[in-house]
Amino acid sequence: MFESAELGHKIDKETWKREQPIVREALLDAQFELYEKKAFPVVILVAGVDGAGKGETVNLLNAWMDPRTIETHALELPTPEERRFPPMWRFWRVLPRAGKLGILFGSWYTEPILMRVEGGLDDAYLEQAIGDINRFERMLTDEGTLLLKFWFHLSKKAQKKRLKKLEKNEKTRWRVTDQDWERFEKYDDFVHVSEHVLQRTSHGYAPWIVIEGSDERYRHLTVGRTLLDAMRRRLEAESGNHTASVLPPQPVSPLNVIESLDLSKKLDEKEYEDRLEKAQGRLNLLSRHEKFGKTGLIAVFEGNDAAGKGGAIRRVTAALDARYYRVFRIAAPTDEEKAHSYLWRFWRLIPPLGYVGIFDRSWYGRVLVERVEGFADEDDWNRGYGEIRDFESELDSHGFVVSKFWLSISKDEQYRRFKAREETGYKRFKLTEEDWRNRDKWDDYVRAVSDMVDRTSTDSAPWTLIEAEDKLWARVKVIETLCDRLEKRLESL
Amino acid sequence: MFESAELGHKIDKETWKREQPIVREALLDAQFELYEKKAFPVVILVAGVDGAGKGETVNLLNAWMDPRTIETHALELPTPEERRFPPMWRFWRVLPRAGKLGILFGSWYTEPILMRVEGGLDDAYLEQAIGDINRFERMLTDEGTLLLKFWFHLSKKAQKKRLKKLEKNEKTRWRVTDQDWERFEKYDDFVHVSEHVLQRTSHGYAPWIVIEGSDERYRHLTVGRTLLDAMRRRLEAESGNHTASVLPPQPVSPLNVIESLDLSKKLDEKEYEDRLEKAQGRLNLLSRHEKFGKTGLIAVFEGNDAAGKGGAIRRVTAALDARYYRVFRIAAPTDEEKAHSYLWRFWRLIPPLGYVGIFDRSWYGRVLVERVEGFADEDDWNRGYGEIRDFESELDSHGFVVSKFWLSISKDEQYRRFKAREETGYKRFKLTEEDWRNRDKWDDYVRAVSDMVDRTSTDSAPWTLIEAEDKLWARVKVIETLCDRLEKRLESL
Repeated sequence: MFESAELGHKIDKETWKREQPIVREALLDAQFELYEKKAFPVVILVAGVDGAGKGETVNLLNAWMDPRTIETHALELPTPEERRFPPMWRFWRVLPRAGKLGILFGSWYTEPILMRVEGGLDDAYLEQAIGDINRFERMLTDEGTLLLKFWFHLSKKAQKKRLKKLEKNEKTRWRVTDQDWERFEKYDDFVHVSEHVLQRTSHGYAPWIVIEGSDERYRHLTVGRTLLDAMRRRLEAESGNHTASVLPPQPVSPLNVIESLDLSKKLDEKEYEDRLEKAQGRLNLLSRHEKFGKTGLIAVFEGNDAAGKGGAIRRVTAALDARYYRVFRIAAPTDEEKAHSYLWRFWRLIPPLGYVGIFDRSWYGRVLVERVEGFADEDDWNRGYGEIRDFESELDSHGFVVSKFWLSISKDEQYRRFKAREETGYKRFKLTEEDWRNRDKWDDYVRAVSDMVDRTSTDSAPWTLIEAEDKLWARVKVIETLCDRLEKRLESL
Repeated sequence: MFESAELGHKIDKETWKREQPIVREALLDAQFELYEKKAFPVVILVAGVDGAGKGETVNLLNAWMDPRTIETHALELPTPEERRFPPMWRFWRVLPRAGKLGILFGSWYTEPILMRVEGGLDDAYLEQAIGDINRFERMLTDEGTLLLKFWFHLSKKAQKKRLKKLEKNEKTRWRVTDQDWERFEKYDDFVHVSEHVLQRTSHGYAPWIVIEGSDERYRHLTVGRTLLDAMRRRLEAESGNHTASVLPPQPVSPLNVIESLDLSKKLDEKEYEDRLEKAQGRLNLLSRHEKFGKTGLIAVFEGNDAAGKGGAIRRVTAALDARYYRVFRIAAPTDEEKAHSYLWRFWRLIPPLGYVGIFDRSWYGRVLVERVEGFADEDDWNRGYGEIRDFESELDSHGFVVSKFWLSISKDEQYRRFKAREETGYKRFKLTEEDWRNRDKWDDYVRAVSDMVDRTSTDSAPWTLIEAEDKLWARVKVIETLCDRLEKRLESL
């Protein structure tokens, strides 16, 4: 879930100078309206890795907004006195009333995560805590609270750099403590546990919003805009619609996981032949491994129209025994399928362990085409991210390797391929009016894909982004990725 | 949560003959409308203790309803073949489409409960399963499914009797297996684990409906009416209101926990003095116990108007050190309190460990006065049961003894007490117009109280029903109950 928070998002000075006053003024307006209407309480959780600028962002929000109706509370670990009260007591004390905002710097997540990472408490403790938190937050939002949960992220490298930099400067040295370095040692554990908690507690009504912490301007603008959008959406929602969900934030920097790909990657014919053959051989051996019956493979192919999904899939299946794989081409749902929840038709296709299921398009239609074309309500596709994570997490814990590929081409390359299809008789059937219509919504799709990767790429079911401008490169990368993941899983069995 | 399912509910033959055709016809109508409109899928889970008549009720529903749009699936433990698929796969396969009903005899609860009770799996496993189930059911209901979860209950005694009776009759002997008796040996564990799971998975949108299993007619009529009411409510709900909650079922038998009390219980003056003094002495010692600082007491007093809550509370406080207790008299919420979630004002009053907090009326206003007077929406008070269970469970796991008393008097006795207050100058202030108005809604309150006890009486925070027709009896029973619970807690520390 941290992919796009490691891209190096930056906002340049001019953009900052231009955007900052606009956001700031709009925020003040929204704050005023919220207060006048005593509309609902706004709770802003601030969490994340050390050194990712949590404190500065809290300070900024306080500086930007009218101090009379916003309060900040530092809520790291409880004091001995506070420990005599039930754990949630100190949080209830500081919850804002309808019309006001409360920033919680540290929250009900702080102790469970730290206790799991550093306190030696076990999974039963953590799972119980996750359950408690989910019920509590559901209650808060059912009761009308707008709950925004910000997670400030830094890659391990960036965190180290940041701590070193602060230490070097005499004026900021005091901010780096021994504890910070001790925690840095546990960075991997911390991020691993945090990712698990974030996945299980991110819901449409209270999603985690992960923000890259390295660039101050980017951080500030993202938090500001996200807060603004969420407040506006709720203020404008029909009254009574308590649980209007919090949508993924508008991008404030041009970077995203999709457009950051280096599409110039390519292979020449010779290298392609060599590597493809080698990878196919590897895949074939892995799929006949004596322990393959305890795992299996669910491979999902999504991508731009004409990005070469079909060709890549054919190179995969060429390496497999036809008795043990199936390819599912997913089109628009039938009436029967529409009469069920959207995951129903996919569950029916899941094979038993020991088999390979390949999906040419998939359940991600929910958050791609259904979102962009408006086939699903905002609240519905928005809760889809969590539902899909749960679905894939079940496949993973049952034993499957879940591999998801996004095949990416440029808009120009797509145009060339469309034209080529038009001109080649036997390929003409592959191009429809719809393809051209989708192309008109290119930017909407880029945003949807980017949100999809952010919210559904997990440790157990990661997205692999494929530079598909060169088909040869794409095919080899797909098969090699499958081999690597299968190999790792088989070794662990 | 099983109190009112151990009362011995019965429906006599005449009532059955009168009611059964009505329910049956209405159910068919609702089923037809559901199908015509392809309105939503209905999923009916059937679970509970062995011998509580699950099978017979499933057969009856099948006999009553149009077989073309209802299907039953037996889903006990998975077969070896099914185990090769992810656990949820076999449930997804049988989920009904919009417009149809599916009865799941055995469900996603079967394996987690049995594995915890008999399979030696630990709490981490169970908590994870509970979390998975909650997210899954939330998704189902968000997607539009009407989910009804029936739990058929028998007391240990009744289960034994039922198994013996089946064994005695030659025609039914085959239905009792060795496994049934083995499971009976584990009755207490089974009920304990089940209660925990039921508490954590009962929500407004998919509550558990606990049904006493001993009388066939009662069981059938309750299931039939509950299904009917829930389908009607959803059919009539505005379209789009996917998560219209499932309300507590209409009572179909005159029995309920409140009216089953034996109000003739009394003490004479002499016995009262003796027992009161002894109990107060005990309470005082317990509250000064060296380990009292690790626990504490949260005592809740609810009851009919003029049932004698104040008098009972004064007898409790007389035994306590004034520095360590506080009594909170809860009136209608202030504007400030209304601007927060309803539990907010109570959280503020919770004392630290080592103290006694006494609530003269409480958070139960949510499901009593707010329900009966319509101050809260149906969906809002209905989700209150689970929220209150969570709240009290937090108090309990922090160390507090949570004791809740319902002081019950008859309608006649209340009239006498009201009249006496009117006639006694210094007591007149205690009687208001509102008291007379509440009295007009006596039956609504009886139902609300009964649902409240059913849904919020738990192992860790049980309701004690107090026969308060005789004030002396009531006071002594209150203090003795507090002593017993405190003593048990202190011994366990």
